[in-house]
Amino acid sequence: MLQNDLLIKACRKEKTFRTPIWIMRQAGRYLPEYRAVREKVSFLELCKTPELAAQVTIQPVDIIGVDSAIIFSDILVIPEAMGMRLSIEEGTGPIFEEPIRDLNSVKKLLRFDPTDKLKYVLDAVSLTKKELNSRVPLIGFSGSPFTLLTYMVEGKTSKFFSKVKSFIFQERDLAHHVLNLLAENIIDYLIAKVKAGTDVLQVFDTWGGILAPHHFDEFSLYYLTKIVEEIKTKVNVPIILFSKGSNSSLEKIAMTGCDVVGIDWTIDIGQARKSIGKYTAIQGNLDPTILYAEEEIIKEEASRILKNFGNGSGHIFNLGHGIHPDTEPSKLKCLVDFVKSESKKFHQ
Amino acid sequence: MLQNDLLIKACRKEKTFRTPIWIMRQAGRYLPEYRAVREKVSFLELCKTPELAAQVTIQPVDIIGVDSAIIFSDILVIPEAMGMRLSIEEGTGPIFEEPIRDLNSVKKLLRFDPTDKLKYVLDAVSLTKKELNSRVPLIGFSGSPFTLLTYMVEGKTSKFFSKVKSFIFQERDLAHHVLNLLAENIIDYLIAKVKAGTDVLQVFDTWGGILAPHHFDEFSLYYLTKIVEEIKTKVNVPIILFSKGSNSSLEKIAMTGCDVVGIDWTIDIGQARKSIGKYTAIQGNLDPTILYAEEEIIKEEASRILKNFGNGSGHIFNLGHGIHPDTEPSKLKCLVDFVKSESKKFHQ
Repeated sequence: MLQNDLLIKACRKEKTFRTPIWIMRQAGRYLPEYRAVREKVSFLELCKTPELAAQVTIQPVDIIGVDSAIIFSDILVIPEAMGMRLSIEEGTGPIFEEPIRDLNSVKKLLRFDPTDKLKYVLDAVSLTKKELNSRVPLIGFSGSPFTLLTYMVEGKTSKFFSKVKSFIFQERDLAHHVLNLLAENIIDYLIAKVKAGTDVLQVFDTWGGILAPHHFDEFSLYYLTKIVEEIKTKVNVPIILFSKGSNSSLEKIAMTGCDVVGIDWTIDIGQARKSIGKYTAIQGNLDPTILYAEEEIIKEEASRILKNFGNGSGHIFNLGHGIHPDTEPSKLKCLVDFVKSESKKFHQ
Repeated sequence: MLQNDLLIKACRKEKTFRTPIWIMRQAGRYLPEYRAVREKVSFLELCKTPELAAQVTIQPVDIIGVDSAIIFSDILVIPEAMGMRLSIEEGTGPIFEEPIRDLNSVKKLLRFDPTDKLKYVLDAVSLTKKELNSRVPLIGFSGSPFTLLTYMVEGKTSKFFSKVKSFIFQERDLAHHVLNLLAENIIDYLIAKVKAGTDVLQVFDTWGGILAPHHFDEFSLYYLTKIVEEIKTKVNVPIILFSKGSNSSLEKIAMTGCDVVGIDWTIDIGQARKSIGKYTAIQGNLDPTILYAEEEIIKEEASRILKNFGNGSGHIFNLGHGIHPDTEPSKLKCLVDFVKSESKKFHQ
């Protein structure tokens, strides 16, 4: 039994006494305690050392007081487990030296067993679960098939996504083959994470928003739906889908059968609730750059979101994107404390 | 009298026999003829040499057959005319060596007379107008105040826009002072362009979409409205507003009094027409990366946009963003030819 099950209840739109809050990338570079761990190991070593991954996963629960932990890992461990050589350099971001572009490179991609290839993540989950000692829930996550495909084809950070767009438009069948393989691997991986101890799942569709709505349906939504449906037949945990920049497709995302839809900051949360609030809970939606402002402004902006969502359950407070590395931890703490107290009046 | 006034008519939602088409960044690096001119001069020299600016402005009219020219220039000539030192490097993009961050740097910004400081643009307009010989309309443009502020504060291309966001949230009054000064300069500049010969104006709000809706209202929409209103009292030309990534604010943009709202590719144009089509014409909305695909797919996607917009006037075909430099000109020609013939059936 969880001591703090606010997140689980909010995912299910059950009554809570206040709005739960956690923060995307809450275990990360903005925290001096995280940087101290990272000084000793590379980013990928940190992902692959369960003791250290557990340690940084729990840091924001202790230091910031968030209502959930999210297992420290990276979305690109899946393409790596599928056989792609991954390097993550400080500053330049992740790089696949041999991005996929044609049938030959696609043929090498593996259907894998997560209890073998991604055992280190599952070990980190079990260990974190034990060390959290039921204080808060633990979220497990994956990138969406389309988002992973984007990195696998581009090979590195991109501005225009020309390569992945060329790939899906010119090699449509091959693209669907890879997306399907990714979806199958993701499903197994997320189910294995739940079996290892995660209480909630989130799928990050970071790049779904670069697609026109009908291409989003074809190349992203279809696979998100497949993932939600298959996971729901196997395990009973809430699923959060977050597709950044996909405001035009919120209703369709809500219709996948997921429990929560994440929104970025480019839509009013009240408007989002009007359109999908009857189907799912909503997570978001503070602009992460608000945390650069003075505390009074942070409170004003947080208050606006609580007010615009309005009374009742089904809201999980979060940023509309990961916290920026140059954020001061005290500003985040201010936000978390404020949401915890201010939100009570919307749950009476 | 223009020989081809389809664009003007479509801006005013008057009946035309087909849908007009022009392409953002149509005078640019994807054209070998443009690159040949650019080999001899730097980007800024090209902007500042009326004969050459006129030459590249007219190239896509001759080579691609678009229904309008748009004067070759850059949105950053305004901050430069306000006293900021600008350099544009191939590959890295524009750089302001001394970005504005505080009162001191803001104090140096000038209110300027466009007939003096930006005479080279006005000369390019007059010359182009003469050389076009009334074949097609000529569009004049500017960046929006918020978009220009973004470059002026960031100093260079940005990923997270941390600096401009910090600036507007922490130095709100100062930000509004600069935005207002920008708006006044932009108004004078656009009116001067019309007097020099442009038939249509477009304001590019390239970065408005990075703002939450209520911040968009405060830091971008307010100044777009001011620009539209003041220009409309002085000259009678259609005004196109294009705010990329601002789907949540389309209705508010349509309410500024502009004639046309540009949309990117992340919204169905039929849905956009339903929401704002009674107020304004709509420009867009093909994903520029579609031009990487085979001609059959380009036609299929263009056909979908024509169909989704539906019958009647008030559509200006365009991409949802500037054409990418690595696009093959033949693909663009295919698109333009297809739209010219296929669109006829929607105008009977």
